[in-house]
Amino acid sequence: MSNTFGKIFRLTSFGASHGAAIGGVIDGIPSNISLNLQNIQQELNRRKPGQSKLTTQRKEADKVKFLSGIFEGKTTGDPIGFIIENTDEKSKDYAHIKNAFRPSHADFTYQKKYGIRDYRGGGRSSARTTASIVVAGAIAKQILDDISISAYVNAVGDLKLKKNYQDLDFCQIETSPVRCPDAKMAQKFIEKIENTKKIGDTIGGQVTCVVKNVPIGLGEPVFDKLQARLAYAMLNIPAVKGFEYGSGFFGSKMLGSQHNDIFLPNEKTKTNYSGGIQGGISNGMDIYFTLAFKPVATIMQDQESIDINGEIIKISGKGRHDPCVVPRAVPIVEALAAITLLDFMLLDKSLNSKK
Amino acid sequence: MSNTFGKIFRLTSFGASHGAAIGGVIDGIPSNISLNLQNIQQELNRRKPGQSKLTTQRKEADKVKFLSGIFEGKTTGDPIGFIIENTDEKSKDYAHIKNAFRPSHADFTYQKKYGIRDYRGGGRSSARTTASIVVAGAIAKQILDDISISAYVNAVGDLKLKKNYQDLDFCQIETSPVRCPDAKMAQKFIEKIENTKKIGDTIGGQVTCVVKNVPIGLGEPVFDKLQARLAYAMLNIPAVKGFEYGSGFFGSKMLGSQHNDIFLPNEKTKTNYSGGIQGGISNGMDIYFTLAFKPVATIMQDQESIDINGEIIKISGKGRHDPCVVPRAVPIVEALAAITLLDFMLLDKSLNSKK
Amino acid sequence: MSNTFGKIFRLTSFGASHGAAIGGVIDGIPSNISLNLQNIQQELNRRKPGQSKLTTQRKEADKVKFLSGIFEGKTTGDPIGFIIENTDEKSKDYAHIKNAFRPSHADFTYQKKYGIRDYRGGGRSSARTTASIVVAGAIAKQILDDISISAYVNAVGDLKLKKNYQDLDFCQIETSPVRCPDAKMAQKFIEKIENTKKIGDTIGGQVTCVVKNVPIGLGEPVFDKLQARLAYAMLNIPAVKGFEYGSGFFGSKMLGSQHNDIFLPNEKTKTNYSGGIQGGISNGMDIYFTLAFKPVATIMQDQESIDINGEIIKISGKGRHDPCVVPRAVPIVEALAAITLLDFMLLDKSLNSKK
Amino acid sequence: MSNTFGKIFRLTSFGASHGAAIGGVIDGIPSNISLNLQNIQQELNRRKPGQSKLTTQRKEADKVKFLSGIFEGKTTGDPIGFIIENTDEKSKDYAHIKNAFRPSHADFTYQKKYGIRDYRGGGRSSARTTASIVVAGAIAKQILDDISISAYVNAVGDLKLKKNYQDLDFCQIETSPVRCPDAKMAQKFIEKIENTKKIGDTIGGQVTCVVKNVPIGLGEPVFDKLQARLAYAMLNIPAVKGFEYGSGFFGSKMLGSQHNDIFLPNEKTKTNYSGGIQGGISNGMDIYFTLAFKPVATIMQDQESIDINGEIIKISGKGRHDPCVVPRAVPIVEALAAITLLDFMLLDKSLNSKK
Repeated sequence: MSNTFGKIFRLTSFGASHGAAIGGVIDGIPSNISLNLQNIQQELNRRKPGQSKLTTQRKEADKVKFLSGIFEGKTTGDPIGFIIENTDEKSKDYAHIKNAFRPSHADFTYQKKYGIRDYRGGGRSSARTTASIVVAGAIAKQILDDISISAYVNAVGDLKLKKNYQDLDFCQIETSPVRCPDAKMAQKFIEKIENTKKIGDTIGGQVTCVVKNVPIGLGEPVFDKLQARLAYAMLNIPAVKGFEYGSGFFGSKMLGSQHNDIFLPNEKTKTNYSGGIQGGISNGMDIYFTLAFKPVATIMQDQESIDINGEIIKISGKGRHDPCVVPRAVPIVEALAAITLLDFMLLDKSLNSKK
Repeated sequence: MSNTFGKIFRLTSFGASHGAAIGGVIDGIPSNISLNLQNIQQELNRRKPGQSKLTTQRKEADKVKFLSGIFEGKTTGDPIGFIIENTDEKSKDYAHIKNAFRPSHADFTYQKKYGIRDYRGGGRSSARTTASIVVAGAIAKQILDDISISAYVNAVGDLKLKKNYQDLDFCQIETSPVRCPDAKMAQKFIEKIENTKKIGDTIGGQVTCVVKNVPIGLGEPVFDKLQARLAYAMLNIPAVKGFEYGSGFFGSKMLGSQHNDIFLPNEKTKTNYSGGIQGGISNGMDIYFTLAFKPVATIMQDQESIDINGEIIKISGKGRHDPCVVPRAVPIVEALAAITLLDFMLLDKSLNSKK
Repeated sequence: MSNTFGKIFRLTSFGASHGAAIGGVIDGIPSNISLNLQNIQQELNRRKPGQSKLTTQRKEADKVKFLSGIFEGKTTGDPIGFIIENTDEKSKDYAHIKNAFRPSHADFTYQKKYGIRDYRGGGRSSARTTASIVVAGAIAKQILDDISISAYVNAVGDLKLKKNYQDLDFCQIETSPVRCPDAKMAQKFIEKIENTKKIGDTIGGQVTCVVKNVPIGLGEPVFDKLQARLAYAMLNIPAVKGFEYGSGFFGSKMLGSQHNDIFLPNEKTKTNYSGGIQGGISNGMDIYFTLAFKPVATIMQDQESIDINGEIIKISGKGRHDPCVVPRAVPIVEALAAITLLDFMLLDKSLNSKK
Repeated sequence: MSNTFGKIFRLTSFGASHGAAIGGVIDGIPSNISLNLQNIQQELNRRKPGQSKLTTQRKEADKVKFLSGIFEGKTTGDPIGFIIENTDEKSKDYAHIKNAFRPSHADFTYQKKYGIRDYRGGGRSSARTTASIVVAGAIAKQILDDISISAYVNAVGDLKLKKNYQDLDFCQIETSPVRCPDAKMAQKFIEKIENTKKIGDTIGGQVTCVVKNVPIGLGEPVFDKLQARLAYAMLNIPAVKGFEYGSGFFGSKMLGSQHNDIFLPNEKTKTNYSGGIQGGISNGMDIYFTLAFKPVATIMQDQESIDINGEIIKISGKGRHDPCVVPRAVPIVEALAAITLLDFMLLDKSLNSKK
């Protein structure tokens, strides 16, 4: 397992859906920085289950407890150890899948790779582990302060928000439970998710993230290009199936004469098909990217599958699950973007701070 | 700069478009394995410039020279050092851009990040550096032997091959200069590229890669999921703007009941929307993914830009460049897939070989 | 800060002398291995304070609590998160040094490097952090099973045990509180430490570690030679000032004709000046090395020093400290040796298991 | 194999005693720094064979050729690739040991670990590989400029220079072929080595290294303490058997009241038993450490050994070897100290440059 993320600013995480706690260690934190702990908890609350009728009804307080690395409200430069206790485990809900391989879950691959599997709630493959990411991301955001990172839901199923991000008011993102800043579209997304839930099904969606006020010079070619590390970060989120930045897949249809971003005398560019990154390095324009999420694998319908012996079985949908992950994915996407950018900022300082 | 790729099997590369040579060091190679050096050169030939009228006419022999790590035809376990000399540098072609920032190139970001820039041919940001990747990938392919990795061009501009990969004959990939296994579509792609070239423009495209016969168990959750490392690898290729695997962006429109891959008693799945990866770990089904490439930034047309002092200038297209990168990108994509898979195979052996 | 140790088998630790808890995350653990948790606690008990009159009287239960990675008694391959609560913090004991730089402590360097310092009990520089090492080491020992690792005290101040390790009975190590297997010398060491304590002083010492039954082939030249990683591991123990293995410093006085270890037909060597390592790789003979520990910096005497403003002050010895660290260092040395060897064993498997 | 050294400033090396070339890639180099290439060659000349009658008579030009990363005399931030051709290989000298395991060489361990071995000149285990270290170290020294790093021979066999380093004139180090700054002792060392050579034997020795003008704050506890990384670096030098810094092994005999370094109002310390490092972090005082080197294993005498089949054979001393390694080890020790310190300086900048 590879449970450390980042090169200088590093999160090492542990814990599974069921068990005493999840948590992590954050290393490589600049020292002597005041942290707003309440704000970290608020970020966690954006991710936590049960926050609206659109999400799983599992009730977790998701209360983070810091164990080290903060002294009199400031970072000491020591690693920050933290835990989040698991309080609403209903392990019995999983007795029926102890020997089953649920379709499109990690049951089969974990069993084959490790020869053993904590079947309760998906064990380590559970999206519950992303809570640790949100903690580290919330700290990263505070250190980055000048940089603003905003993610929002821009598609649910085949419904897609047609507006460019420039035409949206990011202050509206948190006003709807589906985290779409366009009120009309938000309403449609909500209805879509509710209708899907009613039929015991789940549905995919998309999240767009926009990073403004990025300093020029982040990214480390040739094998840690900024877009490569962002893609790596995002594809580690359970359920993400695709990543595109700047012009993305649409860019593959364009001509060079259309796609080239012409420089202005103020070193900005007229267009931004580059998505704020050229040659793997940030150029000071907005960074934006979009992620595709597949529908949640646990559905409230009967499905055929096999058990550990290869026998055909019937799996019945049980437990408490999200009908659509994208609303809760928003803070996770922001967190990973923040960690990635901070990591690059620290790396860049080490080599290029004398310029 | 971060010029090392991989964790166990690692390529550390160096070199720029102009200068004595490019090359690299490959470390973490299993010992006592016979290498077919001619085959490595053949892979390089698939990437080299000037191979057809669809590519840049720069003439580089791209002859790899091994300096260490191979003894009597076998790997010793030592690092393999290698160089590829630059023979067709026309540095004068670049005098006119010494102080210019070309649109959508890395001139601006390199200058700002490093405070200095080798302006000849893009320096280290040149796609020429991908030759070292192909060398390491060719070695990885030989070690993986049982696994087959095939990439092909599936779109040029707005022309897209509609067939599924299962309906294609991968033996036909190398028969067309555009590396599309469908003869009819290949012809259309070629015409598209030639017409684009005639008007001094460039065009984007897409590459799909299919990996068959992957052992179950590759990938290291939670932060080195197989898809995350593949995305990271691919987004390091210059010009790549998007990555999707399995159901990809289309998957975000689906319902869970449609998307779930039902297991069969033989541990295969009926469908493969998962793209051969579940919970970040290979499940033995085919892995497939698609990449979007933007159009090459260097066009044979006049463009407005700025120079190092922020003054507006006119850039004229000069030099020898590809009108469309996707045909030459095919071996690079395969190479990075091979390196990534081998790396995971070696990692998995260290922890799980006793099973 | 760099709080991760190891490459495949990795401990990431956190926590300071005072504060809620110390702990860590262990990643890269082979899956499906039964762990004896009681045995891990026993190893911790060997390190814990207050175990004899020779050690500090701080009373810490040093009870380890595992939070993840173990399911039904076996490793799952997930990271193991664990905490050890700090129960006997007397932070008031440190009020007098809040602004002082104690001689030969880390107060000065931490303040200068980080611009902030948790002055209570040395904060992160406290040897208390070694408890996490012992936990990871105890797990490593269980996985290594066939390999035996035994450390013992071989010198206190200028008293030195003259016997070779071959002439000692390692079963006697734990029978004396000073952890010297030679009863006579143990008694002398004890008296030396007690006399030193009486005068409010501290004293240095040496620890020798012997590893038997090491498989041939551990170590990764040229920059992770086995001896280099062992030295690195050991010099991270607070108070260690020197490392020598095999013939060590004495070997620098020898002739090649004396020092060369002649091979026997059974592939053993007649002598073992090499210390079980040749060319950075284990050769199957015993590995042995010796460490020098300086005297503990906290003494129960008045000392002159400076405060944070450069003013001369008087520091009075307070708090509860060890008069000599070597008895409690023994399990720490063993733990780091175990972690290092296991890490190399896993690395070697990844590249060379097919031989 | 692990052929990369360093975390930010990294040398990845390749090559063996025989074969086309050795070389390396240096990554993580601050950009826009003028390099004096002649000076780098001079450092290599200090290490090269045949420089005096005290060293092996193998004649290697050891001419370094830079292939990338330097543009118009300055670093670009790109990786620097370099090679040093092997010109005086006499592979025939090694035909007699093709199937032999020479005593105290790496023949046996390499064969067992890798299942194959380049027997010519020790292959990758040859000290020839240290030339790449000297190149990287020479670059590091130029970047560190204000810091002075001086190593010298302080013992040959049982002859030991009794003076403290403070009483030596480091300008005299290069005036004697044995690299001892004390003229009288240098003469004795030379005679000792010559007499040893006459009888076909080899002899060990010691090197001390002193680093002055180190900034406060280098070192990354708790697992990359400055002394731990120095020990790690030095124990990777072939033939090193021991490392001690500051008070070293002698310090283990001292009392705390003697050993503590009392601070002065100017933040210097009266004594420096700490060796310039407290809590794993440099405190601004001189860093000094001493290394023990074993005698070279190749002697010009007949020795008994075994071959690859376990049969007893006689090995006759052939080839061209050093009777004592310490004179040529001096620039290697300095190089590794420079790389280590620069790496820590860059790491510290990333996290603590805002203080």
